[in-house]
Amino acid sequence: VSAFEPRNPDYEARVRESFARQGAMTLIGASIVWLAPGECDLAVDRRGELLQQHGYFHGGIAGTLADSAGGYAAFSLMAAEASVLTVEYKINLVAPADGERLIARGRVVKPGRTLVIARADVYVTRGGREHLCATTLQTLMTMMGHADAPRA
Amino acid sequence: VSAFEPRNPDYEARVRESFARQGAMTLIGASIVWLAPGECDLAVDRRGELLQQHGYFHGGIAGTLADSAGGYAAFSLMAAEASVLTVEYKINLVAPADGERLIARGRVVKPGRTLVIARADVYVTRGGREHLCATTLQTLMTMMGHADAPRA
Amino acid sequence: VSAFEPRNPDYEARVRESFARQGAMTLIGASIVWLAPGECDLAVDRRGELLQQHGYFHGGIAGTLADSAGGYAAFSLMAAEASVLTVEYKINLVAPADGERLIARGRVVKPGRTLVIARADVYVTRGGREHLCATTLQTLMTMMGHADAPRA
Amino acid sequence: VSAFEPRNPDYEARVRESFARQGAMTLIGASIVWLAPGECDLAVDRRGELLQQHGYFHGGIAGTLADSAGGYAAFSLMAAEASVLTVEYKINLVAPADGERLIARGRVVKPGRTLVIARADVYVTRGGREHLCATTLQTLMTMMGHADAPRA
Repeated sequence: VSAFEPRNPDYEARVRESFARQGAMTLIGASIVWLAPGECDLAVDRRGELLQQHGYFHGGIAGTLADSAGGYAAFSLMAAEASVLTVEYKINLVAPADGERLIARGRVVKPGRTLVIARADVYVTRGGREHLCATTLQTLMTMMGHADAPRA
Repeated sequence: VSAFEPRNPDYEARVRESFARQGAMTLIGASIVWLAPGECDLAVDRRGELLQQHGYFHGGIAGTLADSAGGYAAFSLMAAEASVLTVEYKINLVAPADGERLIARGRVVKPGRTLVIARADVYVTRGGREHLCATTLQTLMTMMGHADAPRA
Repeated sequence: VSAFEPRNPDYEARVRESFARQGAMTLIGASIVWLAPGECDLAVDRRGELLQQHGYFHGGIAGTLADSAGGYAAFSLMAAEASVLTVEYKINLVAPADGERLIARGRVVKPGRTLVIARADVYVTRGGREHLCATTLQTLMTMMGHADAPRA
Repeated sequence: VSAFEPRNPDYEARVRESFARQGAMTLIGASIVWLAPGECDLAVDRRGELLQQHGYFHGGIAGTLADSAGGYAAFSLMAAEASVLTVEYKINLVAPADGERLIARGRVVKPGRTLVIARADVYVTRGGREHLCATTLQTLMTMMGHADAPRA
């Protein structure tokens, strides 16, 4: 059970619809594997195009996944007429992301009126077990009156 | 003229060869547009797959590009028998990355023996002018005796 | 029960002795209120000199306390002949630190051989309850063969 | 010459008056050594109470000084009826802060309407020369209609 009450009862449809419009999520092959108020988990499966030169998942891919996971965790708590922008994030790559699948678990830490603070832990699946490979801290901004839509 | 003296006279070939092995750089369509000791600029052109839901370059793509730009700026100063790993980075998205081209300019701030600190400013080209859209601060680690090569 | 096994059975004496030599901790009036392998909580009581211009605890004081809490959490796991240095930290001030007491709870996230990743949550006590006011993510470095001692 | 135009012609008096009310700046003995629109340098002289266990300036003190330097750089550009809050900062300690004096040079990177991004480089003076010892990246928030004053 999530600790947060969503302002928008249709939060799930809004998150999924916005996610579907993120070209970058399609590019890396990400999918939503968990969604609840203030919580969003995103995953990608291993493909050569997601790796760095040593054969691990690229730190930028882990950051991209975590940025969107935290962003949608925040967006799930926002009002229907608001959209979300990332202000900044910081990622620590704590172990090589060596494995078959990368999963970023975004969680809201503090839902402010203007700013929302989120964190995401990123795990890599190897030999059937999840190993922590990165952790992030992120600041997001609520954009009131900016529908979450592509530019005309 | 760069402020740094490379330990490895063949640094350029090593950076280009390592870059070519980063699947993630191929995936996003990045290319090296500047390289000097302690300096590396990477660029990508606008494509729908690099955008977020408002039609700007995705913050994670900016982070990925900046991570690699700072990483190769650091790697350019390393000895021939060393490789580089990102420890962490932090990115501030200071303006919407709305434009035709994204360029991350990685610069070494402090080349330590074990740790290297780098920064990268990220610009978006719009109407023929470059606009600052993100800035990063990054910690990298020198891995001595780990050839920069894919796992067998 | 802590999740970590200390390399040095005398870790508690070492942490307390090092802490006692930190002039900055004396300056702000910090004390150790919890210590276990990989865990260290530090607290300061409200005094005018710890505040910023609105009468809340200064963000820098929260950062200083969190830096040391994470640092000693890391140090508690290190070998007897090692000392600890902070590489970097990032702090999000998630709510005004308005209250009588500030407590930073440092926890090791990943104890690597050279680098240790820690986080600290900072709480302010107001009306008998603890409120989260800041959260940090931190990278520390093990300095082997550098006794944790003042310079001669 | 600063690149920024201040909204408030009396910015200097406002910054100095707010600074004087920061108990934490008095505690560590900081003074303003440079002030211009979007720019603020703060310095402290070496005292035992500002050091860590190896005899260098404490990383938290460097962070406190940089936080205020960036904060006042931002505040110098704000309207008369606004005040400033730090949202977050990240500091990289790039070299031991071993010397007689610590100076943090805060500079605004991007002055947004709600959020201001600043950076601060921190130097330590040793043997008559300044050495870079830390660098920060910081997000600040403009609080409109909140006079910069202590709580009643």
